[in-house]
Amino acid sequence: MKTVYSPLHAGHAGTMELISGAIVPGFEKPSRAEIIRARVESEKLGSILAPEPHDLVAAKRVHRPDYVDFLPTVYPAWEASGRSGSAIPFTWPTRGLRGDVLPKTIDAQLGFYAFDGGAPVVKGTWEAVKSSYDVALTAAALVKNGERAAFALCRPPGHHAGDAFMGGYCYINNAAVVAQWYRDQGASRVSILDVDYHHGNGTQQIFYSRNDIQVINLHADPATEYPFFLGHADEKGEGVGEGFNLNYPMPFGTAFDTWSVALDDACSKLIAYAPDAMVVSVGVDTFEKDPISEFRLTSADYPKIGRRIARLGLPTLFVMEGGYAVEEIGVNAVGVLTGFEEGVGR
Amino acid sequence: MKTVYSPLHAGHAGTMELISGAIVPGFEKPSRAEIIRARVESEKLGSILAPEPHDLVAAKRVHRPDYVDFLPTVYPAWEASGRSGSAIPFTWPTRGLRGDVLPKTIDAQLGFYAFDGGAPVVKGTWEAVKSSYDVALTAAALVKNGERAAFALCRPPGHHAGDAFMGGYCYINNAAVVAQWYRDQGASRVSILDVDYHHGNGTQQIFYSRNDIQVINLHADPATEYPFFLGHADEKGEGVGEGFNLNYPMPFGTAFDTWSVALDDACSKLIAYAPDAMVVSVGVDTFEKDPISEFRLTSADYPKIGRRIARLGLPTLFVMEGGYAVEEIGVNAVGVLTGFEEGVGR
Repeated sequence: MKTVYSPLHAGHAGTMELISGAIVPGFEKPSRAEIIRARVESEKLGSILAPEPHDLVAAKRVHRPDYVDFLPTVYPAWEASGRSGSAIPFTWPTRGLRGDVLPKTIDAQLGFYAFDGGAPVVKGTWEAVKSSYDVALTAAALVKNGERAAFALCRPPGHHAGDAFMGGYCYINNAAVVAQWYRDQGASRVSILDVDYHHGNGTQQIFYSRNDIQVINLHADPATEYPFFLGHADEKGEGVGEGFNLNYPMPFGTAFDTWSVALDDACSKLIAYAPDAMVVSVGVDTFEKDPISEFRLTSADYPKIGRRIARLGLPTLFVMEGGYAVEEIGVNAVGVLTGFEEGVGR
Repeated sequence: MKTVYSPLHAGHAGTMELISGAIVPGFEKPSRAEIIRARVESEKLGSILAPEPHDLVAAKRVHRPDYVDFLPTVYPAWEASGRSGSAIPFTWPTRGLRGDVLPKTIDAQLGFYAFDGGAPVVKGTWEAVKSSYDVALTAAALVKNGERAAFALCRPPGHHAGDAFMGGYCYINNAAVVAQWYRDQGASRVSILDVDYHHGNGTQQIFYSRNDIQVINLHADPATEYPFFLGHADEKGEGVGEGFNLNYPMPFGTAFDTWSVALDDACSKLIAYAPDAMVVSVGVDTFEKDPISEFRLTSADYPKIGRRIARLGLPTLFVMEGGYAVEEIGVNAVGVLTGFEEGVGR
């Protein structure tokens, strides 16, 4: 399996995030991608390619154009207001306030386009976000052109980014971008399987009224876990999209025995949908040692996930999402991929 | 003019607020109320009374009951999660996410019920909020029972609190509570005149569809100033409330010559409405030396505001809101009140 990777992710560094009432060094840091890349090499997964540059048309197919155009303006505006470091919001248009008029002040614009203080923007953020987007689209093209699978080593991740909001370390929703791109390239139906610990609220929100892109999430129950405000089992899509969004919320402490039952069920729904291709939002924060998560998967479980996905027999694009146990992130993320390769080989 | 004051405000102390990308000591601090109280005494404005205790029925006439019931639970839940200090949110249900399901985690509940990180909850916050509410209702009863005017020395302030959200140092909207209480006591129409530097977004939001409570705001343009997401000139009320909400947004640098023209226009609209009583949300952060504001009123201007309001000839309840130039807050806030007394005396 080929991997697409860009060193430009590394400019998104030294972030400070707002979480649990404090501003702390970001858990989502450059070493994550570097350790995964090193493991791709040491495991001889396959060649590592640089991304092709893309314009922002594909991003604007899933995000509101004004939101995409906003992203590169954030840090220059933050600097122009006399600050450096991490741009984060402090106020937002909750229900009863106006979400239709963009204020002129950068702090308010951040609140207008975010659902948390967990998508800090530093000097190198936009270049990293753009490179992550290029990585995803370049990897998608590999699969479209005949590869059985490919790995988009995206950083920053994307699945919390919605049509017009960032949050949770995510700015452009790479998985959503490539799913839509497959459609625009002629696929009839595409499935997104999100196995990150956190619900892919952005992905769900983007495709919630669609029947041509199936969205399946396995994740921690939003009643007690971030991102909280989406991901309940009763969210099944709306309008023509009804029945094409599936959520498997699970409680703290869930281990692979329970988690894999949900995966099996998700796979049966995915097969029934009969997509032309699938996108896997790969997060490995389901890991027992993850510092901000509460599931109990072990390193030995990740290859099993890959093997299970391989059995679906679909053109498969793996898009990197979360995972904050940095030491083991390479073993776990690449474990999914080598498991997949083994599954395909059998 | 009698003043109602409670020392219980002082328990809301040592707060840390999220503002402009940083967590800093709260600008809204106990010395504000103490300096105003001392000035009330030194200026011999009138007697200072303690508040009568009230149940929360009047609060639930303007706030959603679930929101009011949430407030006393915040700090115990924050402590139960192993933290102390200031409870502030870090994630919120923006557009596209669910604002109808309250999560079980306190951080998410804070985001559910707030529009910023500027309403920190510490150990003594609820007791202070409740005392501020009691102060407002006790002062309102003085006016109902025949006083020409009264001063509710409320702390914390209230005008940023909406039907189900806190923010901007505000938890229960004292001005909204007393306006509704007047209605429930038989007043046909009540006007609220908000002269705080910041738009009273909560007050507007609560009464936006009502024609029995007129809401008039003079404030900094929300395009460039907090609270940003409400307070534009085109917001005139909706449904039967259309025409009963009036906004006078003004640019940075506005001084009394311009500001007073807006006040005169507001007073003409207020007289045309012919209310039975009026509530003045008194903020003195319009002051030239206010550390977080950009208007240019001087200490000599505040008595003029009081005199202008006195000319309206209405039963008048002054409710304390903002003002963060602590040294001068007594002179400026009490200046409005002594100006009013002079105006009445003429």
